[in-house]
Amino acid sequence: MTDRKQFRDLATPGAAREAIASLDLAPGDEAVPLSDARGRVLEERIDAALDVPGFDRASMDGYAVRGRDTFGADEADPVELDLVGTVHAGSEPDVTVDAGEAAEISTGAVMPGGADAVVMVERTEQLVERGGEALAEGDERAGAVAVRTAVAPGDNVMLAGADVAAGARALGPGTRITPREIGLLSALGVDEVPVRGRPTVGIVSTGDELVRPGGELRSERGEIYDVNSYTIAAGVEEAGGEATLYPHAGDDYEAMERLLVEAAEECDLVLSSGSTSASAVDVIYRVIEDRGDLLLHGVAVKPGKPMLVGELGDSAYVGLPGYPVSALTIFRTFVAPAIRDAAGLPEPQTATVRGKMAVRERYGEGRLRLMPAGLVTDSGGETLVYPVDKGSGATTSLVEADGVVAVDPDTEYLGKGEEVEVRLFSPDVRAPTLLVVGEDDPALSRLLDRLENPRFLPVGSREGLRRLGGGVPDVAFVAGPTERDVESVDLGGWTREWGLVVPAGNPEGVTGLADLVDGDLAFVNRGRDAGIRASFEAAVDEVATDRDASRRDLVDAIDGYEIGTKGFESPARAVARGDADAGLGLRATAESLGLGFVALGEESVRVRANPERTAKPGVEELAAALEAIEENGDILDSLAGYGRL
Amino acid sequence: MTDRKQFRDLATPGAAREAIASLDLAPGDEAVPLSDARGRVLEERIDAALDVPGFDRASMDGYAVRGRDTFGADEADPVELDLVGTVHAGSEPDVTVDAGEAAEISTGAVMPGGADAVVMVERTEQLVERGGEALAEGDERAGAVAVRTAVAPGDNVMLAGADVAAGARALGPGTRITPREIGLLSALGVDEVPVRGRPTVGIVSTGDELVRPGGELRSERGEIYDVNSYTIAAGVEEAGGEATLYPHAGDDYEAMERLLVEAAEECDLVLSSGSTSASAVDVIYRVIEDRGDLLLHGVAVKPGKPMLVGELGDSAYVGLPGYPVSALTIFRTFVAPAIRDAAGLPEPQTATVRGKMAVRERYGEGRLRLMPAGLVTDSGGETLVYPVDKGSGATTSLVEADGVVAVDPDTEYLGKGEEVEVRLFSPDVRAPTLLVVGEDDPALSRLLDRLENPRFLPVGSREGLRRLGGGVPDVAFVAGPTERDVESVDLGGWTREWGLVVPAGNPEGVTGLADLVDGDLAFVNRGRDAGIRASFEAAVDEVATDRDASRRDLVDAIDGYEIGTKGFESPARAVARGDADAGLGLRATAESLGLGFVALGEESVRVRANPERTAKPGVEELAAALEAIEENGDILDSLAGYGRL
Repeated sequence: MTDRKQFRDLATPGAAREAIASLDLAPGDEAVPLSDARGRVLEERIDAALDVPGFDRASMDGYAVRGRDTFGADEADPVELDLVGTVHAGSEPDVTVDAGEAAEISTGAVMPGGADAVVMVERTEQLVERGGEALAEGDERAGAVAVRTAVAPGDNVMLAGADVAAGARALGPGTRITPREIGLLSALGVDEVPVRGRPTVGIVSTGDELVRPGGELRSERGEIYDVNSYTIAAGVEEAGGEATLYPHAGDDYEAMERLLVEAAEECDLVLSSGSTSASAVDVIYRVIEDRGDLLLHGVAVKPGKPMLVGELGDSAYVGLPGYPVSALTIFRTFVAPAIRDAAGLPEPQTATVRGKMAVRERYGEGRLRLMPAGLVTDSGGETLVYPVDKGSGATTSLVEADGVVAVDPDTEYLGKGEEVEVRLFSPDVRAPTLLVVGEDDPALSRLLDRLENPRFLPVGSREGLRRLGGGVPDVAFVAGPTERDVESVDLGGWTREWGLVVPAGNPEGVTGLADLVDGDLAFVNRGRDAGIRASFEAAVDEVATDRDASRRDLVDAIDGYEIGTKGFESPARAVARGDADAGLGLRATAESLGLGFVALGEESVRVRANPERTAKPGVEELAAALEAIEENGDILDSLAGYGRL
Repeated sequence: MTDRKQFRDLATPGAAREAIASLDLAPGDEAVPLSDARGRVLEERIDAALDVPGFDRASMDGYAVRGRDTFGADEADPVELDLVGTVHAGSEPDVTVDAGEAAEISTGAVMPGGADAVVMVERTEQLVERGGEALAEGDERAGAVAVRTAVAPGDNVMLAGADVAAGARALGPGTRITPREIGLLSALGVDEVPVRGRPTVGIVSTGDELVRPGGELRSERGEIYDVNSYTIAAGVEEAGGEATLYPHAGDDYEAMERLLVEAAEECDLVLSSGSTSASAVDVIYRVIEDRGDLLLHGVAVKPGKPMLVGELGDSAYVGLPGYPVSALTIFRTFVAPAIRDAAGLPEPQTATVRGKMAVRERYGEGRLRLMPAGLVTDSGGETLVYPVDKGSGATTSLVEADGVVAVDPDTEYLGKGEEVEVRLFSPDVRAPTLLVVGEDDPALSRLLDRLENPRFLPVGSREGLRRLGGGVPDVAFVAGPTERDVESVDLGGWTREWGLVVPAGNPEGVTGLADLVDGDLAFVNRGRDAGIRASFEAAVDEVATDRDASRRDLVDAIDGYEIGTKGFESPARAVARGDADAGLGLRATAESLGLGFVALGEESVRVRANPERTAKPGVEELAAALEAIEENGDILDSLAGYGRL
């Protein structure tokens, strides 16, 4: 055992894979009802236990006969046979067919004893008289039939077992059960299917600051919602495992030990993800060392340094990093393949895509880099790949990143246009139909709702223009005055009224920008990338010019000017909470939050498209939606202060 | 409404699609717990209801300070600040930081009031003396810290809402929920997710002869297991619907009416599949006409003539053909897209593959042909497509067919090598790694269990060789003497003892073939394609030569010679049931069924590979498995009468 341990240095990615492969995740087998078997994996071979069909079956409507009796019959010279009765599908024949006899039979019915062939009804004629003597109508037994063709024994009869014979190999072990396998199992009468069990995976949450979604969040204590537990649980189920979330019990040694041991007893694999609290991770490390076997501590990948691999009781243990994209990356790269393997499931074909780098990216970090990557398609539908910067925030990059590109330690850079493979975070992930960046705006939100599968990154107008210039996004939404010019195609837009959001009824009697400078108002600003901030600065400059002062003089007098919030509603929400007297915002926001508003101006919001993407279907869809808005105006009419360009 | 009806002539496939699209399958919306949301489709836009993080958050371990206090500090000239306390992650700060003060802080903790930046711990030093005077050890409040760098307000602090701001658009309607969307929803504290409902689909079984898998099958009455209900139910769930199987109540009008009306009241869509009984289909037709609205009766596709489309109450109704492959074909082509559409799910990317025709196939039938097709890969991994003949039986072709190729009415033939698109029966269907045809054999079954994903079609040695010659399969298993020669590569094989399977203890005292000819024994033969049948005929010929008779003379005297069964165990099973005195079979079969055996000879079973496929990985895997058997012999040793070649 101990020779598998290697944590003086960081383990290589290959060693990490081997360490995980050495763990036993294999679940027990189980039997599931046929109706639950879809998507599962057959554990053992299934041989047919019965013949299909289970009886000699008429495959035509007609007459069951002895083939020998029809030899020589044709249109000119039919053979006459005595009718001895009728056999219906789903009932047991109550007649036998002797020489010179026939029985009416329907498709699917059991061949009566004595008969060995069926003459199709079109080649027969039921007789009303025979030898010149009229037959009693409706008296089948007294009837007769003229057969106008010869049939050989076996003709129009499906012998018992002709479809599937008892004893034949039906399905092999490892077969993925899809609807048609369900069909075969049904035909064989199998209603309980032996399948490979799903590996059970316990997810242990660390960090006293984590609260389950739906729980009450006390932000003043620094609590945050637990992102990794649910994300990883969903990843586990997607990989064919069964996830159990263990309630957090505390980060101290005893609580963590109790929790981990309980999870290890109940599950094939235990996963934890790092906490912001270094001490919590340290506690887990000690529990695995004391109570189990720590195989590996840290892997030479970025991210992955905090990764742990070990055993606890009969269970395997892997510790994931704490940053959500990193946790998902390590899970996707090292853990999901092991779960799929234990579940007997192949890597989904849609789990990777190939694409071309949309930008040049430098590396040369000396260790394997697992680069979170976003996808965008060009006009020709080709997939482009760009690195997602984790600087933008844990949650934001979680939604922007579609997967991971593994970059070799010795790769110094990936050139623009170079082909790379992206391991998607889910086989269900698809590149967005449209990648929009820029100014956040309530009309934009509604507009995007009408498009197929857009992705919007609210990075502000300035950063949006910068990214548009970089060539990655399809479209930038740009509000207010802009400093730089970027080559782009204007697709239209709208105007919106901006100004100061104040408490309902405007209790401080704010009338304009001058009150911020001259009064004693607590103000909340927007960040420097916001277009509305540029409009605000332009307005400050105007006042400065009027007063023959510098912008600096004025803004130094505004309490709160320097710190810019990110969200377009953030200043208004601060006002609503009573944390501020005035905030930079839109009339539409003030109205929707029931606050007061002091107008300072109107600014345009323009949709500027990447010139190389105007023929892309997603951009065309956006252009059409913009045109529709300009025509019927529904979205603009529903928002206070909005108008046509 | 009435102008949608069109059943004087068969409807065009386009009209059928339109008729189905005109039906309302839309389910209601629902809210699901976050842990059940994976794979579902968001019904409405979700805007962030809170800031992430919800507080100004330290993003480094270090000291919370007022940035202004550190201006000018560097390594040479540190600034000394009074320590006023410590802030831990997950707890509310109990200090505020005034001018000249600092508070120890850990990553993730809430910034204390007054502080606006964090100095990372590496750029600080906790002082043990100040102004020459020793500080009380452990007395934090009396302590001080030297700061060796300047920080600006906001440095190493993540402002509330910097990741996701309250009011920002988080996810749009129609978003497919994958693990990373679960992550975003977690971060926003959303524990109940508004998703599009799954269309509910009721499946009505027709045909009094159908028995649910697991139920008792009375073959003597012509009963068969219900294949379509479970198959189509699995297809419905794969397409994103929720299937309900309605118990069969009978094929008469009142029972069918009650059942259909009940299903229509409870479901968005009702499906039935045709029965072998024409009258049952007719009854359904009448119920829909009387109680609902029949829009379409029969579509000009092959198969599809029996297709019905209509409305019943508020529910949509589609009647599928009865033959399982046809039912699945029509479901896949017309119904599954409508269910997916109602569920808001895109067509899976793996639902179609392109491949080249492995053979030439003639058409020109004047209507759209939906050709069931099997897949096989060539040595280069390219997908080849071949038509699956439904002559082989309902269940057999269900497992051989991987999907459907739509062939235009005016296509006269598809040439060998022509590229076609195959709509797979399931996105989980993959081409087998190896396509084996030929003689069924218990050693072969065990051998195949060791391969990844083989497909075996037990068509017998003769038909297997014919198919190998046709170029479609990778490998044929051939037993006994063969009539024709086909170019192939011999991969090895084994020998097996064959003869007459007789009741345990051999009560009739059978000693050999002559007893069949001369005695009064009921014999069960194998079909003409079986290699063991060729061995048997060769043995008959030997006896005939000895007796100076013809083969015909001898076989006419064998009761049961003419009718050949399909399965390799079929004759033995007839003996075991008491239906026959002797059956053609293997010593291994006789032993496994506890029967007697009279040896007639030994025959070879050879694995013959398609010369163009020897480099295919699946064939190489088979060759390696065969070699392993020849070396360790485990499979051969476990079967009576088996030996090395």
